[in-house]
Amino acid sequence: MTVTTTTSADLRSESVRTLYDQVMARCKDIDHLNGIGGLLNWDQEVMMPPKATAVRSEQLSVLVGVLHEIQTSPVQGALLDELEYRQQHEDLSIVLNPYELANIRLARKAYKEETLVPVEVAKASAALSSKSAAAWAAARKESDFSKFAPFLEEQIKLLRQSMGYKIRGGSKEEARKINEKARASLGLSETDECYKGYYQGLMNIYETGFKEDRLQALFADLKKHLIPLIAKIKAKNFQHDNSFLLRDYDITKQIEFSHSLAKKIGFDTDAGRLDVSTHPFSGGAHPTDIRMTTRYTLNNIKEGITATVHETGHSVYEQGRNKEYFGTPVSQALSLGIHESQSLLWERMVGLEKPFWTYALPLLKEKYPEDTQLQSVTVDQFYLGFNRVEPGFIRIEADEVTYPMHVILRYEIEKALVEGDIEVADVPALWNAKMKEYLGLDVTEDRLGCLQDIHWSFGMVGYFPTYSLGSIYSVQIFTHARESIPNLDEHLAKGEFHVLKEWLNKNIHQQGSLRESGDDLVFDLTGKHLDSSLYVKYLTDKYTAIYDL
Amino acid sequence: MTVTTTTSADLRSESVRTLYDQVMARCKDIDHLNGIGGLLNWDQEVMMPPKATAVRSEQLSVLVGVLHEIQTSPVQGALLDELEYRQQHEDLSIVLNPYELANIRLARKAYKEETLVPVEVAKASAALSSKSAAAWAAARKESDFSKFAPFLEEQIKLLRQSMGYKIRGGSKEEARKINEKARASLGLSETDECYKGYYQGLMNIYETGFKEDRLQALFADLKKHLIPLIAKIKAKNFQHDNSFLLRDYDITKQIEFSHSLAKKIGFDTDAGRLDVSTHPFSGGAHPTDIRMTTRYTLNNIKEGITATVHETGHSVYEQGRNKEYFGTPVSQALSLGIHESQSLLWERMVGLEKPFWTYALPLLKEKYPEDTQLQSVTVDQFYLGFNRVEPGFIRIEADEVTYPMHVILRYEIEKALVEGDIEVADVPALWNAKMKEYLGLDVTEDRLGCLQDIHWSFGMVGYFPTYSLGSIYSVQIFTHARESIPNLDEHLAKGEFHVLKEWLNKNIHQQGSLRESGDDLVFDLTGKHLDSSLYVKYLTDKYTAIYDL
Repeated sequence: MTVTTTTSADLRSESVRTLYDQVMARCKDIDHLNGIGGLLNWDQEVMMPPKATAVRSEQLSVLVGVLHEIQTSPVQGALLDELEYRQQHEDLSIVLNPYELANIRLARKAYKEETLVPVEVAKASAALSSKSAAAWAAARKESDFSKFAPFLEEQIKLLRQSMGYKIRGGSKEEARKINEKARASLGLSETDECYKGYYQGLMNIYETGFKEDRLQALFADLKKHLIPLIAKIKAKNFQHDNSFLLRDYDITKQIEFSHSLAKKIGFDTDAGRLDVSTHPFSGGAHPTDIRMTTRYTLNNIKEGITATVHETGHSVYEQGRNKEYFGTPVSQALSLGIHESQSLLWERMVGLEKPFWTYALPLLKEKYPEDTQLQSVTVDQFYLGFNRVEPGFIRIEADEVTYPMHVILRYEIEKALVEGDIEVADVPALWNAKMKEYLGLDVTEDRLGCLQDIHWSFGMVGYFPTYSLGSIYSVQIFTHARESIPNLDEHLAKGEFHVLKEWLNKNIHQQGSLRESGDDLVFDLTGKHLDSSLYVKYLTDKYTAIYDL
Repeated sequence: MTVTTTTSADLRSESVRTLYDQVMARCKDIDHLNGIGGLLNWDQEVMMPPKATAVRSEQLSVLVGVLHEIQTSPVQGALLDELEYRQQHEDLSIVLNPYELANIRLARKAYKEETLVPVEVAKASAALSSKSAAAWAAARKESDFSKFAPFLEEQIKLLRQSMGYKIRGGSKEEARKINEKARASLGLSETDECYKGYYQGLMNIYETGFKEDRLQALFADLKKHLIPLIAKIKAKNFQHDNSFLLRDYDITKQIEFSHSLAKKIGFDTDAGRLDVSTHPFSGGAHPTDIRMTTRYTLNNIKEGITATVHETGHSVYEQGRNKEYFGTPVSQALSLGIHESQSLLWERMVGLEKPFWTYALPLLKEKYPEDTQLQSVTVDQFYLGFNRVEPGFIRIEADEVTYPMHVILRYEIEKALVEGDIEVADVPALWNAKMKEYLGLDVTEDRLGCLQDIHWSFGMVGYFPTYSLGSIYSVQIFTHARESIPNLDEHLAKGEFHVLKEWLNKNIHQQGSLRESGDDLVFDLTGKHLDSSLYVKYLTDKYTAIYDL
């Protein structure tokens, strides 16, 4: 470890630069330990032999304990307090640049988050999560929500408990404001139960600084336009041929093709790996050591390509982070929504569109010269087959038009659950009613409904919206990129992806966590707050043309 | 972390069992963090992308810092002190079994070792090692020892410094006794420089509890018999044909063959992996997560087979450790010499011999049905070609007859260096003189002489003898196995390796660190102290027959 310990009595005489450096030294240690955790997780999914499962979970738990010790170090607290005192009495921007000032803000926030919740609550939550995930898996197998319900209830209780500490301790300012307002309007005292605003706090764990009332407005707009659009497409009762995607495609060649796409987009294989796992993900230990995975299906070539391009989007974000501030909070990805915007931008804005396939289809044909059906497919036909819309029960299989409805449904239910407007027992009926309303589908089994996602079993509530924020961000960012980069579509059609990648490096990746929210980042970049109308227009125009609505 | 903190004032009222459990809880955390380090090292050699080199070394250094904090925790010290007090006043063997008593002894020893040396010295040593290794690599490239000499001098100085702390602090008892005796005989005071006994201490880092005077006796015996044996073989000026080993062997099939051998010997692929790296090794994170590597050469099939069987020996030792005491010191491998005895037992006692090849040669022929030369080789011919003796400059390429001389030469030089009988500048001339004496070779370049090994650059002095202790152990253990297991050779000739593996599991692997030295382990097993005459007889008989001496 590079950390030196300084007692708080000494601190007043230290320079701001020295205090800053000491805080950052500990941040870098934390970053390295997190990186080690990332590597252990990757290894577990990709390399680890099966009998090591038990010991790996013990190793991770020891690592979490070590991290907690460092993250809650009283020395770090004293340094941050001293910097706060200086900030109140001096203009630190004379000594520190905006990145460094952001680092202090972020380090203070992280320290607060980690220290406010008593370690017993954090431990109870970790212990519950592994039991709860097992119960979820068993309940899903039997398609019986009631078997999972007691665990979900327990998770909600613990989430409220830990969020209560954070809100009262002031690390979740927005949530506190909402909570106080609700208490006042209901005439409640500090000790009365009131969970209004808790969803805001939970969401901000994943989507920093984003206000829930903005989310509500965005989602209302999506519902208003997408429910009718989906109904219209359904009513057409027509599908474009995609049989050429569903033939047997040799896996080794799929791997070669996906690797070449990832590299072409800009994934640096000297600073990362692409392997195979059951669930594709992008992780690893550091921007110089990114581990992404994908998966391949013999008789569905779309799956491997889409997963690879998606994960490449995440990975080039990580590889593109600001080198100068490696190891410090400001170089880290801003939020899950912004992360998802990068994967979806490449997967959808690029990877579903004609310019991309103008470049890639000939290469795919070269890989499978013996496949006469593939050889005869035109880019137009490929595009139509690749962009089918089919409302279905399962979120992770959803197309870009129906996906937001899956997210909004979950958002509405999890918010009501956490804030006490519904009971856990109400979930299945509510889920099924919303599926009917939004996608016109009758859910017959919990397995295909409220038991399909693992997130709640881990206590991940407030996470789902980031998927759709990612979509909305991605359209707005890509629209701006198209306005800013001359002849972007022509570049893409020639496989000159670096033009777009470098633009994203500069405008998104290297910006890191300099801003306080994704909304701020988008505003500074495009001159507009996050705007669902661009997203709605993109989907409406595209699918009106595809389905001749 | 599973550790609870107890202040020392409370300890007198705690039960021995409670004290023991608390010490072990911390040992298990340490074991997990070491396991994580093992995984990081494996990943670095096998999986890591090249640009991650810098960050991986930072991660490892943070991990070392965290480990040091836990290993030197004052709480652990207080618990161990209290257990020592109890041990002086009660009979702990009523409460604790021999494994648990060994755990206390080993935990105390580890704690002492880690706390006696000031952290600055440990850090200086780590910092020097990376610089020194780079200097060694550069010097070797230029074949110029003088470029490496200043770094070796610095390492010797630091080694003496840290060994001084350990000797004075009493963690190296044997070394202290020797040192005091030498001081007395030379009429030196405590403050006068005297490094006699330091080699004993250094050797015990790698070969716990082994006395150097026993080592001297063993090595003297080897020199007495092996130097003439080597000279005789050389004088014969005859070699058996081994051209059938040096043909182009398809690597994929080599991999399949090696994997099948490893599994057949008993490597559990559900609790480990076999991959490829530049230098074969056996490492990993835990007995349920062993990562071993090997390497393959297209036109030398012996290399891949030998390396795989060797590493399999290490790995089945690790996988065979005592499950009941996983995570505690007593379940750990006893010493490097004993570890090497397990790899060499499989590589040489089994893998060089006719019973093994009676089983394996037909399988190798099946792999390469198109190779008519291989098809015509008999087991006898294969045996003769596989067991060639050729004195050479390079230790890692040496056969089993000349290997000990490489080790003895290094031992004699490094001991003299550390204890102050020669200067660093004397090394090349001394090396070359000994090569001439022991193997009859004229060293013309430092690259092929005193610059060939990386060990000294890392400050690993006292390590080399474990290679030859391993050979001597392996012969004695295998000789005893053959006496204990009815028809062992017949089992081996049928590929029934489990008979031997299970015997080793019980008699070596599961014994862990219960005993205080490898010599004790061998004595309890065979009724005799480590005995070089068995080894000398094995080599003499075998090669007298092979070379018709």
